[in-house]
Formats: sequence, structure tokens, C-alpha cells
Amino acid sequence: MLETYRTSVLPEWTDYNGHLRDAHYLLLFSFATDALMDRLGLDAAGRARTGHTLYTLEVHLNYLAEVKVSETVCVMTQLVAHDRKRLHVYHALYRGETLATASEQMLMNIDTATGRSAVFDEAIGKKVEALMEAQSDLETPAYCGRVIGLPARR
Amino acid sequence: MLETYRTSVLPEWTDYNGHLRDAHYLLLFSFATDALMDRLGLDAAGRARTGHTLYTLEVHLNYLAEVKVSETVCVMTQLVAHDRKRLHVYHALYRGETLATASEQMLMNIDTATGRSAVFDEAIGKKVEALMEAQSDLETPAYCGRVIGLPARR
Repeated sequence: MLETYRTSVLPEWTDYNGHLRDAHYLLLFSFATDALMDRLGLDAAGRARTGHTLYTLEVHLNYLAEVKVSETVCVMTQLVAHDRKRLHVYHALYRGETLATASEQMLMNIDTATGRSAVFDEAIGKKVEALMEAQSDLETPAYCGRVIGLPARR
Repeated sequence: MLETYRTSVLPEWTDYNGHLRDAHYLLLFSFATDALMDRLGLDAAGRARTGHTLYTLEVHLNYLAEVKVSETVCVMTQLVAHDRKRLHVYHALYRGETLATASEQMLMNIDTATGRSAVFDEAIGKKVEALMEAQSDLETPAYCGRVIGLPARR
């Protein structure tokens, strides 16, 4: 997997429990997606050249362990699948060796002039394929494909 | 549904596109969950009395329409299901009549002394049941039970 973000947990991200607030785990994944975009050539210069950007369509988060203020965390990222317009991405937030939060996301390539979905620019598409190829040995993460619901009654 | 949060979109919540950043939709839902906790008696006084709080276990978000800086949005909330320890909640973020983002969430009642799940305090449990009863005529929202994935190839 690709390390896409690393930070110390800031006090303003925590809640009344002194833990990272649920929304701020997603903020770290959002920063990780920014880094992934840079890696794929969709940094500010790439967005200006192509007129494209990525929008988040759908996100799933599983909270597995707490993270507290000042702890260092990092986000590891796997491209699970893609087509000509979409990236199915998995971000995993680690505190040391502990998987603290898992997130799968569907991202869509958007033509900013029209606000509509668009096929990846050729250079970007090649980088997407290269990343997919580089990660082809990785298994589909366990926290992909989940449905939210209460357990069936016993 | 229950209105649990209303705000104008602040500049610090937006991204380079001038849109509300994906993580900050969840921040608004997080504030809505705080309001739901107040409603169920798990405000600061209730947390001190019971020694309980709610942790977010799992979140699913569907991004349906953009929200921009200074626009007014509100969160409407439905209790989809519950058991003796868990709430299955649906939050919907509206910009006027437009459903901008949908989120289902699983929340767990936690004993803060042990960090483990706990049966709801009796008074809290009664409020949970009263809210469930008050919303019993509502259908299960369309954006519940979803799985993330690319469409099957044609």
C-alpha cells in the first residue's frame, strides 16, 4: 500500500472525550485523497491542464480503535479497482501497527467546466493503471463491501 | 424526521473548489449526532449521571449534490432501528428541498469507565423507544443498506 498521509492529531480535531472526532478521521482520509490526486497528476497544475478533478461519491467508514490528541497516525492507500471514470479506493488509518479506521470510497472524475463525469485524461489514466498494476498483488481489504445493519436477533 | 442541526456553511469547511469538503459533511452529521444525544438524555449531565456515551462504529455517506460556502443547510434525522446497546441512525443533509448528502450510521452505547459496550441506562432506553415509536410511520430511507462497488461491466 501507498503511504498518503501522516500527521500528529491536533487538539482542534478532538471531541469532549479527548478522542479524534468521527468526522476528523474522514478529514485525514480527505487529505490522503488530495495526496493520491497529486500522485496521479491531479494536483493544482494537473487540474488546470485537464479541467478535471475528483469528486467523492460515496464513503464507508469503520471505526476500530480510538485515536487521541498528539498521537501520530498515518494513512495507507490501496486502489481496489477503477474504470475509465471512477476510482474505488481503500484508505486505512494506522496508529503504529493498529488499524484504527478503515474507509472505502468511490471517487468520480469530473469535468469542472460542466460539472459532469468525464473519462480520465490520457496521462492521468496511465498513472491510474500503473498504480493498479503496482498494487495488483494486494488482496481486497476486509473492510470493503460492507453493509450497515444490526445483527439478526438470536 | 427530526431536525437535529442547521447552519450556514463556513469558509473554513470548504475545499479548493469552494465546495463543502467531503469530511465536513460528516462534521455536520457529527454535530447532529450530538444533538440527538442531547435529545435522548446523553447530554453532558446525562453522560455524567450514567457514565455512558455513544461511539460511532460505522458510517456510510452518499454525496448527491454540492453545497457551497454561505449556503444554509439542515440535517434531518431518523432512528431506523435500535437494540439494547445500538442505534442505527439515518441523517439527511438538505439544502432547501434538495437532499445533498445521506448518511446511515451505527452508534454504540459505551460505558466510559471500561470503554466497553453497555445496555442503555433505563431512562435513556425509554427515550430511544419513544423516538422509535414517534418515527414508526417513516419508511426505511433509500440510502440505507448500500454496498460500494463499481457497476458490473456491460
